[in-house]
Amino acid sequence: MSDFRLEHDSLGSVKVPQSVLWGAQTERSRQNFQTGGPMPYPVIKALLQIKKAAAKVNSSLSEIDPAKATLIEETVDQLLKQDHRKDFPLVVYQTGSGTQTNMNVNEVIVHYAAQIAPDLPLSPNDDVNHAQSSNDTFPAAMMIAAYQACVDLLPVLTQLITAFQKKQTEFATIVKIGRTHLQDATPLTVGQEISGWISALEHDQQYLKQNMATLLELPLGGTAVGTGLNTPANFDQKIVADLAATYQIPFIVAPNKFQGLANHSGLNMIHGCLRTLASDLLKIGNDIRFLASGPRAGYGELIIPANEPGSSIMPGKVNPTQVEALTMVVARIMGNDTTLNFAASQGNFEMNVYKPIIIATFLESTELLTSSIHSLTEKLVKGLQVNAPRMQALVENSLMLVTALTPHIGYEKSAQIAQSAQKQGTTLREAALASGAVTATEFDQWVKPAAMTHPAP
Amino acid sequence: MSDFRLEHDSLGSVKVPQSVLWGAQTERSRQNFQTGGPMPYPVIKALLQIKKAAAKVNSSLSEIDPAKATLIEETVDQLLKQDHRKDFPLVVYQTGSGTQTNMNVNEVIVHYAAQIAPDLPLSPNDDVNHAQSSNDTFPAAMMIAAYQACVDLLPVLTQLITAFQKKQTEFATIVKIGRTHLQDATPLTVGQEISGWISALEHDQQYLKQNMATLLELPLGGTAVGTGLNTPANFDQKIVADLAATYQIPFIVAPNKFQGLANHSGLNMIHGCLRTLASDLLKIGNDIRFLASGPRAGYGELIIPANEPGSSIMPGKVNPTQVEALTMVVARIMGNDTTLNFAASQGNFEMNVYKPIIIATFLESTELLTSSIHSLTEKLVKGLQVNAPRMQALVENSLMLVTALTPHIGYEKSAQIAQSAQKQGTTLREAALASGAVTATEFDQWVKPAAMTHPAP
Amino acid sequence: MSDFRLEHDSLGSVKVPQSVLWGAQTERSRQNFQTGGPMPYPVIKALLQIKKAAAKVNSSLSEIDPAKATLIEETVDQLLKQDHRKDFPLVVYQTGSGTQTNMNVNEVIVHYAAQIAPDLPLSPNDDVNHAQSSNDTFPAAMMIAAYQACVDLLPVLTQLITAFQKKQTEFATIVKIGRTHLQDATPLTVGQEISGWISALEHDQQYLKQNMATLLELPLGGTAVGTGLNTPANFDQKIVADLAATYQIPFIVAPNKFQGLANHSGLNMIHGCLRTLASDLLKIGNDIRFLASGPRAGYGELIIPANEPGSSIMPGKVNPTQVEALTMVVARIMGNDTTLNFAASQGNFEMNVYKPIIIATFLESTELLTSSIHSLTEKLVKGLQVNAPRMQALVENSLMLVTALTPHIGYEKSAQIAQSAQKQGTTLREAALASGAVTATEFDQWVKPAAMTHPAP
Amino acid sequence: MSDFRLEHDSLGSVKVPQSVLWGAQTERSRQNFQTGGPMPYPVIKALLQIKKAAAKVNSSLSEIDPAKATLIEETVDQLLKQDHRKDFPLVVYQTGSGTQTNMNVNEVIVHYAAQIAPDLPLSPNDDVNHAQSSNDTFPAAMMIAAYQACVDLLPVLTQLITAFQKKQTEFATIVKIGRTHLQDATPLTVGQEISGWISALEHDQQYLKQNMATLLELPLGGTAVGTGLNTPANFDQKIVADLAATYQIPFIVAPNKFQGLANHSGLNMIHGCLRTLASDLLKIGNDIRFLASGPRAGYGELIIPANEPGSSIMPGKVNPTQVEALTMVVARIMGNDTTLNFAASQGNFEMNVYKPIIIATFLESTELLTSSIHSLTEKLVKGLQVNAPRMQALVENSLMLVTALTPHIGYEKSAQIAQSAQKQGTTLREAALASGAVTATEFDQWVKPAAMTHPAP
Repeated sequence: MSDFRLEHDSLGSVKVPQSVLWGAQTERSRQNFQTGGPMPYPVIKALLQIKKAAAKVNSSLSEIDPAKATLIEETVDQLLKQDHRKDFPLVVYQTGSGTQTNMNVNEVIVHYAAQIAPDLPLSPNDDVNHAQSSNDTFPAAMMIAAYQACVDLLPVLTQLITAFQKKQTEFATIVKIGRTHLQDATPLTVGQEISGWISALEHDQQYLKQNMATLLELPLGGTAVGTGLNTPANFDQKIVADLAATYQIPFIVAPNKFQGLANHSGLNMIHGCLRTLASDLLKIGNDIRFLASGPRAGYGELIIPANEPGSSIMPGKVNPTQVEALTMVVARIMGNDTTLNFAASQGNFEMNVYKPIIIATFLESTELLTSSIHSLTEKLVKGLQVNAPRMQALVENSLMLVTALTPHIGYEKSAQIAQSAQKQGTTLREAALASGAVTATEFDQWVKPAAMTHPAP
Repeated sequence: MSDFRLEHDSLGSVKVPQSVLWGAQTERSRQNFQTGGPMPYPVIKALLQIKKAAAKVNSSLSEIDPAKATLIEETVDQLLKQDHRKDFPLVVYQTGSGTQTNMNVNEVIVHYAAQIAPDLPLSPNDDVNHAQSSNDTFPAAMMIAAYQACVDLLPVLTQLITAFQKKQTEFATIVKIGRTHLQDATPLTVGQEISGWISALEHDQQYLKQNMATLLELPLGGTAVGTGLNTPANFDQKIVADLAATYQIPFIVAPNKFQGLANHSGLNMIHGCLRTLASDLLKIGNDIRFLASGPRAGYGELIIPANEPGSSIMPGKVNPTQVEALTMVVARIMGNDTTLNFAASQGNFEMNVYKPIIIATFLESTELLTSSIHSLTEKLVKGLQVNAPRMQALVENSLMLVTALTPHIGYEKSAQIAQSAQKQGTTLREAALASGAVTATEFDQWVKPAAMTHPAP
Repeated sequence: MSDFRLEHDSLGSVKVPQSVLWGAQTERSRQNFQTGGPMPYPVIKALLQIKKAAAKVNSSLSEIDPAKATLIEETVDQLLKQDHRKDFPLVVYQTGSGTQTNMNVNEVIVHYAAQIAPDLPLSPNDDVNHAQSSNDTFPAAMMIAAYQACVDLLPVLTQLITAFQKKQTEFATIVKIGRTHLQDATPLTVGQEISGWISALEHDQQYLKQNMATLLELPLGGTAVGTGLNTPANFDQKIVADLAATYQIPFIVAPNKFQGLANHSGLNMIHGCLRTLASDLLKIGNDIRFLASGPRAGYGELIIPANEPGSSIMPGKVNPTQVEALTMVVARIMGNDTTLNFAASQGNFEMNVYKPIIIATFLESTELLTSSIHSLTEKLVKGLQVNAPRMQALVENSLMLVTALTPHIGYEKSAQIAQSAQKQGTTLREAALASGAVTATEFDQWVKPAAMTHPAP
Repeated sequence: MSDFRLEHDSLGSVKVPQSVLWGAQTERSRQNFQTGGPMPYPVIKALLQIKKAAAKVNSSLSEIDPAKATLIEETVDQLLKQDHRKDFPLVVYQTGSGTQTNMNVNEVIVHYAAQIAPDLPLSPNDDVNHAQSSNDTFPAAMMIAAYQACVDLLPVLTQLITAFQKKQTEFATIVKIGRTHLQDATPLTVGQEISGWISALEHDQQYLKQNMATLLELPLGGTAVGTGLNTPANFDQKIVADLAATYQIPFIVAPNKFQGLANHSGLNMIHGCLRTLASDLLKIGNDIRFLASGPRAGYGELIIPANEPGSSIMPGKVNPTQVEALTMVVARIMGNDTTLNFAASQGNFEMNVYKPIIIATFLESTELLTSSIHSLTEKLVKGLQVNAPRMQALVENSLMLVTALTPHIGYEKSAQIAQSAQKQGTTLREAALASGAVTATEFDQWVKPAAMTHPAP
């Protein structure tokens, strides 16, 4: 018995390994395209769901044999139950419409169904792909996968925000030196500093939330160019309603299917939100690692968990490895943003043929963010501690506190005290007392860093 | 009489030309920073408005002398009445907080006020900058200028959409060949093709509209590090309310001033919307210029206005110059997106010191878009015409129509006809009649391109 | 018997699966970092070679026991013989120095060696890592892997150039219409058009060749911060010489090890060459797919191989899928360029902690280019054909040929002929004869497109 | 007398202000394109030189009247003598071939010549543009302007390197703490740290030097599509030789003119070198500003010149403003890199229609770099000082020195001492003496930071 069977398409016959579930078009693609990694599995799963929904709708509209529809549904259910990655071997760098992956899904359903019901042969095109085209199913699968990926990201972001909020409360009253231009500035509390990080994350989360509905628009029913040729009346509304029910996500028919096939504005815009988040994460990550720099020759204000030995001999050296992983993710997302925006700009006429790279890039970004934010939360933020004595020492040592003396002894005298402290390398308090202009009691009463962390009462 | 006067600051004295309205800090910056172009004037104007609002609030809270406040208000009004660009000579590539431009504004107000009321000398710091810091006024001015720039962009985008809608209606029933993978595909109407462009623009406009409220958040009242040190109670609410009234724009106090000083998430996110628009404009522009390619050896479906001679001798050659200008704008905006996102990511601690490049880049993008979209609308879209005979010929010549025969004579016979037409270089109609499988009457009854431009009725 | 053993490091003990070859530090990283894909294997292989070379040099300098050195060498040889990917499970998004991967390599060598020589226990730090630090071995491994990747790319680029050269010769005398601004322009030969593509590729290949020597600089011997602390005299020269001999590649000691650890200018600059190549590939790919657009409603000048059915019913529809895969690669490389340049900019003090993402991105770019260029060459360029009749028809139909009449009948008369042809929709020849100004013989003698494809003789 | 004259072209007549030197085509462009700033003047100047060279060659080949050639030469010489910017009003965002600017130059020469020699009227097309096309002159002018801009950048880069070299020597023996992962690491000298900066800059300068010859390739003689139609024999060699002599720069005829018109690989690749330089400048700038952070609560190792008051009251606060301006330049160049690479990728067939944005972006990058590097050198690097006591204190306070004890008292005892120091907050010396394992004499003999800054002797 041969290891291969012959499959046919309009170009002729193709040898396909006996053991595999795919057919001619998948095999041609597998041989013609060997660059890069596999099409992301969430896209395959979304296509499977689309096939199932299409079967139901086609059956209800008497477009295909109800028995065949039931068989497709059952087959998809079984395929979704297990990890069938090996049956979807095609790569991202294939045809730019994703047609080959759509056909891969059609073919696998046909062959898998043949094992369930050998007497009810299905056609990949006429049955499984009925009233569809790769040109509408693939972008619809992109949207479904992308929306789900955003749904997965949101709670992880909430976890990070929550973890920071605990720290904000925990360190609400600890006063530390502020820094602008990297130079010593007026004081604030640790809680305030963390509140800035939280606010950035909340902004970014809000951007995602208030915009991700743009990913709900499925151009199903558009078929080859967006006109809906070869679809029965209302096919689009029915299939999208079915998917919305299945996913419990309020998908809608794309308001304009021509745009849905030829543009990917929604994915592009949402990735703009992701890169804004990435950008803010970089700022937060950099703050944490610089504030935790030391142990002796750095800022030394924060203490981060020691997850690995930072040095085999030197205690106290804790490398900010979680931040390093996170910031490398940020670098990747910045690049993905360039890739996706470029790809989105290159549509022509009735199609954009950069679909696989657009969705692969988008899903890489969301997955990297979701995973690395989770890791940062668990392995760094939850264990974040402050070096309160260090913070206090830096505040006391600061010359910036001189601003608190001016209302009492005037600008000129205050400046002289600060200059003297700077020249002698003393604290402001020492210089103030030495100047004779201020008593110790007065200094302690007037110079209260905590009072400098808010407007006049 | 000397050409110079001496101005003083804490570093000593500086020679300043007699004729100018600025002081020591402006002059130092002018000499220390000579790279690149001037700070965008909308930022200066927003700072002037902030100074006026601050004067009013400071007066109402008895923070500064009411006479001085009135003088500041009057001075700002006069400065805003005329183009005072020459008095704000500082460049974008200066200190990253924009401090020098904030001081430039303070100094110009003081010197201009001295001409109005020589007997009421103002202090740039204690009066004009009272309860403010460059660290909160400059980012507030960024937001005001950016919001206004978006407000200016929206109607221009509406004009383009409206212009396309007229064309959509005008060409609603003209059938043309569709193209996917650049290859001939099933037909659609010109109106449908244009509807895809419109939909993309409507999506992009909607993104802008539903997100630009993020630019309303003014971190005024934050002063040096976001704590509000040295501001009277409620200063933030009052000054923002005043600005909202002045501009008739619903500005709000930034929910978190630490974020407002150290992050620029809002500008970053909105620029993500701008680059999404730019990306879609590229697709539309490319469609137009390819469809207008020719006159003899191109697609030749669209006719664009001849604004300039395309060739001194060859008639019919019309270069798509408006599209070329537009797509160069797109290239710039793609780069600005990289610049802005990078800059937004580089904040440290209580400040981001890339403020001038962030706002300069943002305003360059909005201005380029506003101007080039307006130009495209007026000089190209409004005059867009179709070459209907060419479109009809391409449709009739297309083999894609064969799909309309299959319900009647079957797949196999249809494919044979198409192959014969391709081999002989004839139209499908010719091949169909030659095959004997279809009569002329049948062909004309069955093959109706217009019927292929929508789902089954 | 337990499934786990306990491994120890300075933070305490870690449970490690019995079956694996790694130790405590690898296991900690494996548990702490689970974002993204594995460290590229070429980096692992380069590290293994570095370990072997270090063992030899350390032995020769009496730094480690010669028996241990021999054992390390033998172990590395065996590890390199087979695919040991599963023993190097760490991901790219780990610590930014790559320390964990360096320790993974050290640990695997130790455990594998223990199977070969149970009585000669090795220390991962004192023996395998002797006179090294992750901080110098990892960037050295980056350079080795990157250089090799460029070496692999060059011949594939040559193959593409050669394939185009064959086509250039094959179509050297076929005249076609030129296009500027997408509008019909004066003619050129197909060979000339292809020569432009070749020239672009040759430029890009030359850029790579004349610059890749910058990747030869290995900062070995720098250890932790670049000073060479804990290395014996001349260790750097000796280990690099050994690697140069092993690889038969003229590696040199980095001229400045501080730069070698903290900057990645060489990788950044070479990626600039890769993206220039990518940019030119996009132009070539776009040219090919537009020129092959059709079969009836496009430019239709080129015929590309039909590797897959473009349509199940419509003959002649051949989607440019190889170009689509290639141009998606280009989109990725544009993004990688942003990632790598950003990452390269973010070094601080004695280290850049974006090393893993830098090398992963670089190697992704080279591998994608190598694979997709090979695929394009084999599956598209070698089978490229021209539609000569179509080209001839477009040239004859063109109004641009009118320029050939001006020397004979003057500008004004020529322009009238062209305008008449355009208005009537005739060829220039028809209009010329109809004008009475030119005879058929004259026209055919004067208007010779081939003569317009070069300067005056 | 009217304020306008009528100028004519093939589209009809255009009203042009009496006072200006341009004609119909410039005026049409001026009215049709009003987006963005003016075409960079170096491009205009290069076009003027090309016109002069063309006149000479055309005369020598008897292509144009020698008297006209002499008049063109004289006119160009006079135009180059003064700043004639106002006569070249066209913007960057015009036609993508730069045709309108080429015609602007042709028209200005004609009108200016008419003032010199009213009786010898010139034709902008037949005389001034003879044997040329915008399609070859404009890219040639791009190359000339770009090459010159690189020539201007090199010495400024040398000045920065030289300034750093002086500092390297000045601080060659001052030992400071090293930092990896931002954490304290083994020591190095200030000179060594600066040597890393220098090495990065030298690498970047070398990249520029060894590649900028690619900008010497002028596609003159290619005319409309690269074939050289309408050029006399050897026109290309002669005009390039003339320009080479005029500029004293070894320009060559582009080896392939089709590539020279349709690709801009050379500019793209060189901008890759510029962005690599920018990336390294960011790292250096960040190092400087972080090492200068303080005065009390930062790293405090470097002292930078106080060019402006950092605070009106707090002494010692010196904002790193020169670095801030520089790093904003870096952000811009990163964006320009995206713009230029994108634009370079978008050529079609015989032309790339993003020429003006490509050259404008390139020249902006070189000018920003040249100016900001000069400013950094003069206003920061030359005045850079170290805070030697601070550096010494950080080294002495560091626990990293413990590595120097291990050869003498073993790893375990050393680690205990370090841990004790960390726990007690003492110096290593204090902990070592307290441990009883080391005498003061021994400690001072064994622990010599300077000895840790190089390999074993």
